[in-house]
Amino acid sequence: MSANDFPGWMTAIQHRTETALEARLPEATLAPQTLHEAMRYAVLEGGKRVRALLTHAAGELTGADPAALDAAACAVELIHAYSLVHDDMPCMDDDVLRRGKPTVHVQFGEATALLTGDALQTQAFQCLTEPLPGVASGTQLEMVALLALASGSRGMAGGQAIDLASVGKALTREELEYMHIHKTGALIRASVLLGAMCGRPADEATARLDRYGKLVGLLFQVVDDILDAESDTATLGKTAGKDAEHDKPTYVSLLGMREARTLADGLLQEAHGALAPLGDGARRLRALADFIVHRKF
Amino acid sequence: MSANDFPGWMTAIQHRTETALEARLPEATLAPQTLHEAMRYAVLEGGKRVRALLTHAAGELTGADPAALDAAACAVELIHAYSLVHDDMPCMDDDVLRRGKPTVHVQFGEATALLTGDALQTQAFQCLTEPLPGVASGTQLEMVALLALASGSRGMAGGQAIDLASVGKALTREELEYMHIHKTGALIRASVLLGAMCGRPADEATARLDRYGKLVGLLFQVVDDILDAESDTATLGKTAGKDAEHDKPTYVSLLGMREARTLADGLLQEAHGALAPLGDGARRLRALADFIVHRKF
Repeated sequence: MSANDFPGWMTAIQHRTETALEARLPEATLAPQTLHEAMRYAVLEGGKRVRALLTHAAGELTGADPAALDAAACAVELIHAYSLVHDDMPCMDDDVLRRGKPTVHVQFGEATALLTGDALQTQAFQCLTEPLPGVASGTQLEMVALLALASGSRGMAGGQAIDLASVGKALTREELEYMHIHKTGALIRASVLLGAMCGRPADEATARLDRYGKLVGLLFQVVDDILDAESDTATLGKTAGKDAEHDKPTYVSLLGMREARTLADGLLQEAHGALAPLGDGARRLRALADFIVHRKF
Repeated sequence: MSANDFPGWMTAIQHRTETALEARLPEATLAPQTLHEAMRYAVLEGGKRVRALLTHAAGELTGADPAALDAAACAVELIHAYSLVHDDMPCMDDDVLRRGKPTVHVQFGEATALLTGDALQTQAFQCLTEPLPGVASGTQLEMVALLALASGSRGMAGGQAIDLASVGKALTREELEYMHIHKTGALIRASVLLGAMCGRPADEATARLDRYGKLVGLLFQVVDDILDAESDTATLGKTAGKDAEHDKPTYVSLLGMREARTLADGLLQEAHGALAPLGDGARRLRALADFIVHRKF
């Protein structure tokens, strides 16, 4: 493929991820039907699948089997989906719109939303126990451990707890960064590393991918803050301006818009720098970093 | 040890499970502190640890390393604890008392309770990725898969969804049984099988333990319904009589107290029958079935 085939590659991975998720989520005709319907509603036909794209891009670099990458991509997307369902609930962000649709608790009620998030998390771990072509069972077990660490109280869930505690407070830039490294960054970094682990990463590649994953995780959040501040709800597919409304500290509120953009540019350059020695195999990862910065939603 | 050493064995396993959980839960001094404090509050110093006892008892039969059994026991106890935290929340059972203490959302707020349950589930899977002495990594991966299946939408979380949908409805005995096989039974059965998998179960033993696990899971629920109907809140350490108050179908409401007791006796005999060919190695499992029937809380 040429260097300009990124949009086609992205669309292809998004489609195969949708198919892979569809196949793994229980049919809505199976009991308990409402729960299965809500799980599918929360996951399917939604999102840019940035995490799945990162998993596939990293796996292409390390020569991973695409079928193994599908399972790993589903695992991170299911963790992400569960976190959104719970995050939108009235006791958390109390949001009514997600990916252009009513949120799960609005559509199905709070109790079902709670169980939906719970069951999606479980399903994420289940994905990593499937037979993964080309992956030794010891490595698979390391993948489960990595996903758990990235998702739990020292990763994503911990970041959400810090977020909760920070509403209405003036955070320093270090504190804001600490929050985002956990809340968003940990799972994005895991998406990259899980993809790489499905193949045969050289030691140097692993260290570089780890650095890339951390940078892209932070970059994603900085751009998210910029988009929340300047986009409208129709474009985002979720409620715009809610950070300011909820008095949440963001990179834009802390640094101002101009400085936030400068930060994003700097992180993007650093991410490219981390990938530099990895040659042409890392071209998808480079294009993804660019995409994360230039996206509109 | 003699045949009458069961109380001493039970106390010893309960103590070592408490120690094993304590060691695995992040310190409350680590950030995010409130989340870690709530996780420890939800898990430690509470409960009979029936699931951990079943794991150890089954592992003793198959010659498992006690250190491996500690990790498996923590995994099932953490899944159980997470389900209680979420189940007690206002959008579910809305309960204020658990194990004689205010429930997590009463003590720490709803948002923290939600994240606490989430992070405890993650931690459960993390336990099964530790190096388990004597257990091959392929078997460990099967253990992760088994726990996921027992906990997810086709197991425990699914059972809770059926429970939600059944409030105020007249269920048949088959429907009630279907609900409990998922809501309580799946994790109890998994507790037995995970313990056995830490050792070297013969094929016949696995089939018998599977049957025992299913019977004991159902037995546990029938006795729970009896206790809920006839005990007081102080003895139970959780709100008594709430099934009737919430108009929830139970074995007692469906069959009457006498018939429910007859059912429990029959299940206990069947459980003993399932273990009969397994000899003296199954004595802990036998004593546990008796304990489940004769407990007062």
